[in-house]
This record gives sequence, structure tokens and C-alpha cells, in this order.
Amino acid sequence: MFEKVLIANRGEIAVRIIRACKELGIKTVAIYSEADEHALYTSLADECYCIGPPPALKSYLNINAILNVAEKAGVDAIHPGYGFLSENANFARECIKRGFEFIGPSPEAIEAMGSKINAKKIMKKAGVPVLPGREEPIETEEDAVEVAEEIGYPVIIKASAGGGGMGMSVAYNREELIEKIESTKSIAKSAFGDATIFIEKYLEKPRHIEIQILGDKYGNMIHLGDRECSIQRRHQKLIEEAPSPIMTEELRERMGKAAIKAGKAINYYSAGTVEFLYSDGEFYFLEMNTRIQVEHPITEMITGIDIVKEQIKIAAGEELSIKQEDVVFRGHAIECRINAEDAINDFVPCPGKIRAYRSPGGPGIRLDSGVYAGAEIPPYYDSLIAKLVAYGRDRNEAIARMRRALSEYIIIGVTTNIPFHRAVMEEEDFIKGNLSTHYVEEHWDVLKDEMLKYAIEAKDMDKLFIEKVFQDNKKVAAIVGGLNAYISRIITNNNKEKDKYGGE
Amino acid sequence: MFEKVLIANRGEIAVRIIRACKELGIKTVAIYSEADEHALYTSLADECYCIGPPPALKSYLNINAILNVAEKAGVDAIHPGYGFLSENANFARECIKRGFEFIGPSPEAIEAMGSKINAKKIMKKAGVPVLPGREEPIETEEDAVEVAEEIGYPVIIKASAGGGGMGMSVAYNREELIEKIESTKSIAKSAFGDATIFIEKYLEKPRHIEIQILGDKYGNMIHLGDRECSIQRRHQKLIEEAPSPIMTEELRERMGKAAIKAGKAINYYSAGTVEFLYSDGEFYFLEMNTRIQVEHPITEMITGIDIVKEQIKIAAGEELSIKQEDVVFRGHAIECRINAEDAINDFVPCPGKIRAYRSPGGPGIRLDSGVYAGAEIPPYYDSLIAKLVAYGRDRNEAIARMRRALSEYIIIGVTTNIPFHRAVMEEEDFIKGNLSTHYVEEHWDVLKDEMLKYAIEAKDMDKLFIEKVFQDNKKVAAIVGGLNAYISRIITNNNKEKDKYGGE
Repeated sequence: MFEKVLIANRGEIAVRIIRACKELGIKTVAIYSEADEHALYTSLADECYCIGPPPALKSYLNINAILNVAEKAGVDAIHPGYGFLSENANFARECIKRGFEFIGPSPEAIEAMGSKINAKKIMKKAGVPVLPGREEPIETEEDAVEVAEEIGYPVIIKASAGGGGMGMSVAYNREELIEKIESTKSIAKSAFGDATIFIEKYLEKPRHIEIQILGDKYGNMIHLGDRECSIQRRHQKLIEEAPSPIMTEELRERMGKAAIKAGKAINYYSAGTVEFLYSDGEFYFLEMNTRIQVEHPITEMITGIDIVKEQIKIAAGEELSIKQEDVVFRGHAIECRINAEDAINDFVPCPGKIRAYRSPGGPGIRLDSGVYAGAEIPPYYDSLIAKLVAYGRDRNEAIARMRRALSEYIIIGVTTNIPFHRAVMEEEDFIKGNLSTHYVEEHWDVLKDEMLKYAIEAKDMDKLFIEKVFQDNKKVAAIVGGLNAYISRIITNNNKEKDKYGGE
Repeated sequence: MFEKVLIANRGEIAVRIIRACKELGIKTVAIYSEADEHALYTSLADECYCIGPPPALKSYLNINAILNVAEKAGVDAIHPGYGFLSENANFARECIKRGFEFIGPSPEAIEAMGSKINAKKIMKKAGVPVLPGREEPIETEEDAVEVAEEIGYPVIIKASAGGGGMGMSVAYNREELIEKIESTKSIAKSAFGDATIFIEKYLEKPRHIEIQILGDKYGNMIHLGDRECSIQRRHQKLIEEAPSPIMTEELRERMGKAAIKAGKAINYYSAGTVEFLYSDGEFYFLEMNTRIQVEHPITEMITGIDIVKEQIKIAAGEELSIKQEDVVFRGHAIECRINAEDAINDFVPCPGKIRAYRSPGGPGIRLDSGVYAGAEIPPYYDSLIAKLVAYGRDRNEAIARMRRALSEYIIIGVTTNIPFHRAVMEEEDFIKGNLSTHYVEEHWDVLKDEMLKYAIEAKDMDKLFIEKVFQDNKKVAAIVGGLNAYISRIITNNNKEKDKYGGE
């Protein structure tokens, strides 16, 4: 086993990886940007090194600075987390070149899945279901129209180098298609440095269902079941659950087998996720994430398997100790991504300092947080501050526990999307499990009203808590004043909007 | 189902019960003494009522005050938690008389188990293994000697009305026996108002292993497996685990059946625990706790069953929905009781105000806490402030996670027994599972040295954290000064003690 691991990441995922290392008896080395000096993860690691100022380009994406620290600290391996350099084949290659184990798949596997066209080609060849379309770059308008008419409208135009939902356009007819071809190309070029696009069938109301896989370096591979991640906003997942409300044993077996086929097609090892779109009983390869995912805890809750520890053991050359038949699913788990963002106000990020903090707990609750009372949320990075996970014997119990935990969670000083999660947990279609990737936009009006209700309700609870914590009139008055101002602002905005659309 | 429940308790167990109620959609009413006005549970309940000043006699033990609140608030049922009135048959009877469901067993069942002699008689008759002895009060010296010589020394003299290890003396021979008879009687008289004593065989190095049972009002009863609770100090449990390191399927089935026999002998319903002493492959009835226990979460972790919710459903008249064959044990769970006490300094209680707080989390960690940054630990009640539970696929993983979680846990302002738990988690016999109820005293020297090491180590971590949280030189200096003084004091005391026993 490794003696020392460097974590090339920040925030809650750095905390998560440090925890896995500690449980395995491995020393940890954290890196941080100047903006993250006081972050929780820096106080949990055994050693810490500053690698530069924000933004990420000057620190968390600076391969050379990171590898210099790795050398200086004498680590055996590097865990990239998610985001940043985690799916950068060049980083993986440089790690290996400089003598460090990369805790992830081979650079070749990362590369194979990095190009969407290429990934789709590989999957189709391997017999993994893919959406109708052509696995070739679209060069001309004529090309595009030909493919679209072959598969039928609506179609989706995608940047091959894209990801996270960027660089995609939907066309419902020939005119729209022709109109959007060039604009998608130029977005792809400017965002990813690669104008290559392709076209496939557009599913109107798919679910996003993904399969977690684990493979070792000796060709053993298992899947850990499914996760439903349909609740997204601008293609960013907000709420995930395992299993999917529509999952059956038969479907899980089919999807699991397809995911293993996908992994084996690229000689995959480490933890990885094969994402599918699901519609009307059929599923189609969407993309593969060659890294640990934010939502991995829900799978850990229902299988009892620690995916990050497995990742580390695999990287260290251990054979997979779990067989497919040992993977037993028990209960239901839901994850809410707690972001420092104002969901009511179009999810605008809200960096700042956490003045007072009370975390939820008790039966069935797991909290993977990157913060504490006093922590700063810097404005330079993604707004995820904690992953709140609720487990129950069944979906209803998991929902009841999530509601309860959300009602206990107090974060004062930064605005969070807790009201959004509370609203979803009470919304009828969510409770019934009627989900699609358009869930948030389709339920926006009802969710917004509910969020507002929860934000106002939370204000009173927050006030009570602030009084208990500070017992200092001046401080209490200042913080409560801020809360009141926020509530007035959102109520005013909401009324304005209602007036604007009043008659409709 | 009930609409509103009053929780006749405080601290972390009040929080636990409020959580269960919330998940069942039940409104909650908290009661508090003047000392608990700002306690966490009061801010989680829907309604709160002050019922008097400390100590408990004037508030949490004031049956009339509690039932008046129950009437005023219009509750359907009352949950007594543990301690206080939870095993007071008269309280249960008064609840029922005034029209409230008592969330616990019948007053008769409480009463039957309240007298140790009577409980033992019932158990022997029901075929539950009991320790050799005589299930009759010992009246005279001659009586005592006769029984002792029949069963052989050593013997233990117990107060029939005793509990929690109070009013017990061990005698290794006739002289000791005669010497201790009268003193035990008078202790029993003054502590419990009842001088009745009895004698049974004393086991030298037993394990404390208990079985959780659940029964409904229709005669259905199941067991949820075992918990090992051998790590105690003055008969107060400190660390519990499930299953016991020595448990086998065969033994669990035997003990489970005996526990169900015990429950059925008194027509038990609700959650209850049958405690056994275990030695050399045999187990003997010790006592039955007719209430929820502090250590119930470890059973919840390995079975997935929410015992408090089941308790409430049973009280509401629901039939038990779980069959014995549905109870599946998975993994291993350990609980450390986090007490505000100075373990190094003979576990002296340390009430005070929590100045800064950082709770552990992540995979496998459950925290049932009654506190927050800013909370007061009053001096009037027991010193339990949180239950830290670690779950793993096996015992080793549970231990690794507990170590990791303990190392993350920061509580500044009151001294806690975290160094004790850290020391045990690294101690060889504990790791091997070599436990007995004398574990703490037998390992005291090595534990004490390790505790000291952890206390000193924690000081540095605490200092770092305080700096991050407060960023206010004066405050930091004041708190760090306090920490330093504490460390100096324990080092000085320790050296003095070492000098005292130096040559030995």
C-alpha cells in the first residue's frame, strides 16, 4: 500500500479523499491556492503546500507546480478528485512519467472517453446501446441535414470535445438545424478549442441514469448498480438517488452488463461511471466519467462499499476483493448537493464567510462537508460546500430523513440552495419518482414559491440560532439585518416578476 | 399515528426522538429546565415549555409538571427517553391515566423488571439462563453463608432495587461476605429506599452482551441481534459495538431466543434490552432495560431498522412490520460515548460552554449530538454530549473509521473523553476483541499514557482550528491559554503520580 498520497484537489472532495487515506493508514499531502489557506481540508491533511494564487489556472491546474510538491513531499501516488485535472490524460501521463502512481484509469482510457465522437464509436462497436446518429464529424450543412433526416427530428448537435452539457443545441426541424450548425461549431471552437461536432437523436424527456463500475488492473470488473441523476440545472446535477425509482432487477442487470462492456472496451481500471439516457424502457450511452463522481456516496450507502478506498487499493495494484455476487443492494439513498448559491435568484453563486453553522446528523444521515463555522467560500471555484446524504430502508424513509436533515441544517453568512432541496423533497412528481432531465425547468413555478416559503421560514430559525450562538446583541442585530434584507429582496423580486407576468 | 408527542427528556436523546417524530410527520413538544433553555433539542422541537429549575427532581422528574404541559400542548403520547422517568412504572401509569399513550412497555412490565430478585425469579421460571444463587432476599448472615457455600466463592451481593452497578459488593470468602452483608444492605437502603439484597455467583471476567428486542401489542416479538458493551467504567458503558467480536450465528440465535423468552415472560411490548453476562461460552440473565438505550444506534447501523420509530409505531398500536427472517445483519458498528469529562483525571465531569466545534462526518459516520458551537453543558445532568458511531464492512473498517472520526472531532471549551476513545481504538486487546467488563481498569496504565499523548496532540490541532475560526488575537490567546493550562496540569499530575509509584 502507498505510504503517502497527494490530493490534487480542494474542498469537500479533498476531505473525502483524506478520510479514505486515513482509514487506510496513508499519510496525506494537500495542496491549496492562496484562497484556500483556511479551508477545512488543509487542516485535516498531514502536510499542506500552497501552489499559487487563484484562479485555478494558476494553481489547481498547474501541473508542474503540483508535481513539484509531489516530489518535494515524497509521495507515492496522486489522487486527482473530480474536475480540475481529473480527466486530463496529459496530467495522468506526467504523474506516471515522474514516478507517481495516478489514482485513476490509464491515460489511454481517459483519452478514449475524452472525445465524444470517439467514445460513441467505441461503445457502438462494443455493443453498448447508443443513440441513433452518425459517429462521424459533421462537416457541412448537407451532412447535417442528411443525418437528421435519416434519424428524424428532433436532433441534438454536440461538440465532440464538450462535456458537462456545454456546446449542445437542439433542432426540431431543418431550418433550426441549419441555423444552429455554425453557432454550435463556433461555441465548440471557443470553449474547447475544437470545432468538431456531431449529431444524434434528441430524446425529449429522458432520465439520466448512470452505472458505477470498479475494475482492477487484472481485468476484473464489477458494477455497483445505478444512480438516477435527472434533477439537474444547466446540466449540473443537484439531487441524485440510488437506486432509480424506476429500477428493476432486470433493468439493473441489463444496464450493469452494458456498463461493464463499456469499461472492458477500453481496458478500464479504477472507479468509473457510465452515464446513460433512459427513455421508454431503453437506455443509450451518453458519456463515461473516468474519475470519482460527486454522487458516489449514495452508492456507498446502499452497497456498503467505500469506492474511494477501492480506487486507492486498485491503484496500488491490489486485486479487486469484491465479486459481483457480493454486491448486495440494501435500502435507498438520496444526495442533495448543498451549494453556496441563491437558487431563488437563478442559482447565482454566493461566496462569503460562514458566520454560524449547525450540521444535521442522526440516523441515516451522512454529511460530506468541506466547511465549518468560520470558513470562507471563495468566489473562484464551484459552489459545492457539502453533500448531504440520507439513507432509508426504502425511498420514502430516505425522503423523510432528507427533509428532516435539511430542516436541521443551518448555514449563516452565505446563501445556500437548501430551500431548493426542501421544495423538491415536498414536490409531488419528485415524491412519485416522476423525473426527467427537464424536471427543474418544468416545475420551476411551484418550486420557486415553495423555496420562498422555506427561505422565510428558515430566517426565523436562523435568528433563534444566532441568538443562542452569539448572545451578543450587536452581532445578532448585524447578522439578522442581513437576513432580513435578503428576504425583502427576494420577496420584492418575486412580486415584480409576478406583476410582469401577472395576466398570463 | 400520533399527531403530537411530548418528549420527557433532554440532551441528545431528546434530539434523537424529535428526529424520529419528524420523520413520521409527528409534531414534537420539548420540555426543558431553566438550565437547558438554549439546548439544541429545544430549537428542533415544534413547541417548548420550561418545567422548572435544575436539578432533575424539580423538573425532569416532576411528573405533575410534565403531565400538565402534555395537557396544555394537547399531545397524544409521551416518550420518556432513557434515565429520568423512563423506568418509573408510576409515571407510565400516570400518563395512561391522564389519557396519554406511554411510548414504552406496560407499567406492569416495567415493575416486573424493576426488582432484581423478582426479575431473576421470572427469568428462571421462563427458562432463561440465570447465575447460580438464590432468588430470595437474604435476611441473615447464616442465610448468606449458606447460599455462598452452595454456589461457591466468589459471590456478589446485590441490592434488589439497585441498577447501573450501584449497591453491589463482591466477596471472595466467608469473612468478606460477613463483613459486606450489612454495609451493602445499608447502602441499598439509603440509595434505593429498600434494603433487600440477594446473592449470586460472581463471574471474574465476564463480557457484557445484550440483545435488543422489539415487540408489539399483539404478541409479535423479534430480536435485532447483540451488542457488546464490556467497556465500562463504574458500570457506565463507554464504548459499545455490534456484533460482539466473539459472536457466532449459533450463539446469536441462542441468545436471541433467550431474550425473546424473557420478553414474552412479561408480555413485553416496545423496544427493550435483555442484558446478559457472558463467560466461557455460557450466558446469564443480568437485567432487562425496559426503555430505549443509549447504544441503540449501533444496532440500527447493522440492521437498517430505526428502533425509535418502531417504538413509536408500536405505541400507536401498529403491528410489527418486520419479521425475524427480515432482520439481516450487515457490517460492524462501534459507538463511542462522547462525554464532557476529563478521562485522564479520573473521569471527572467537565461542564462548561463549547467555544468552537467541528463535527466529524463522511463515510460510515453517524453523529447523534446534543450540542453545537456555543452550547452550554450544564453541571446538573449526565455528561453525555454526543454519540459517535462508526460503521464498516467489518470490525477493522469500523475501527479505522472511528479513529479517523475521533481525530476530526474538535470540541473546544469543555474537556471531553475523546483522548480516552482514541487510546482504546489503538490498544492491542481492544483491536483483538479481547474484552471483559474489567477492560478499563486492567488497561488503565497504558490507556492513560496514550490519552495524555492524544490530549497533547489535540492541543496543537485545536490551536490551529481556533485561529481559523476566530481570527481574533485576543480571543485566540485566551482560549489557547486555557488549553495550555489544562495540558500543564495533567502532565504535572501524571508526573506526580509516577513519582509516587515510582519504584513499584
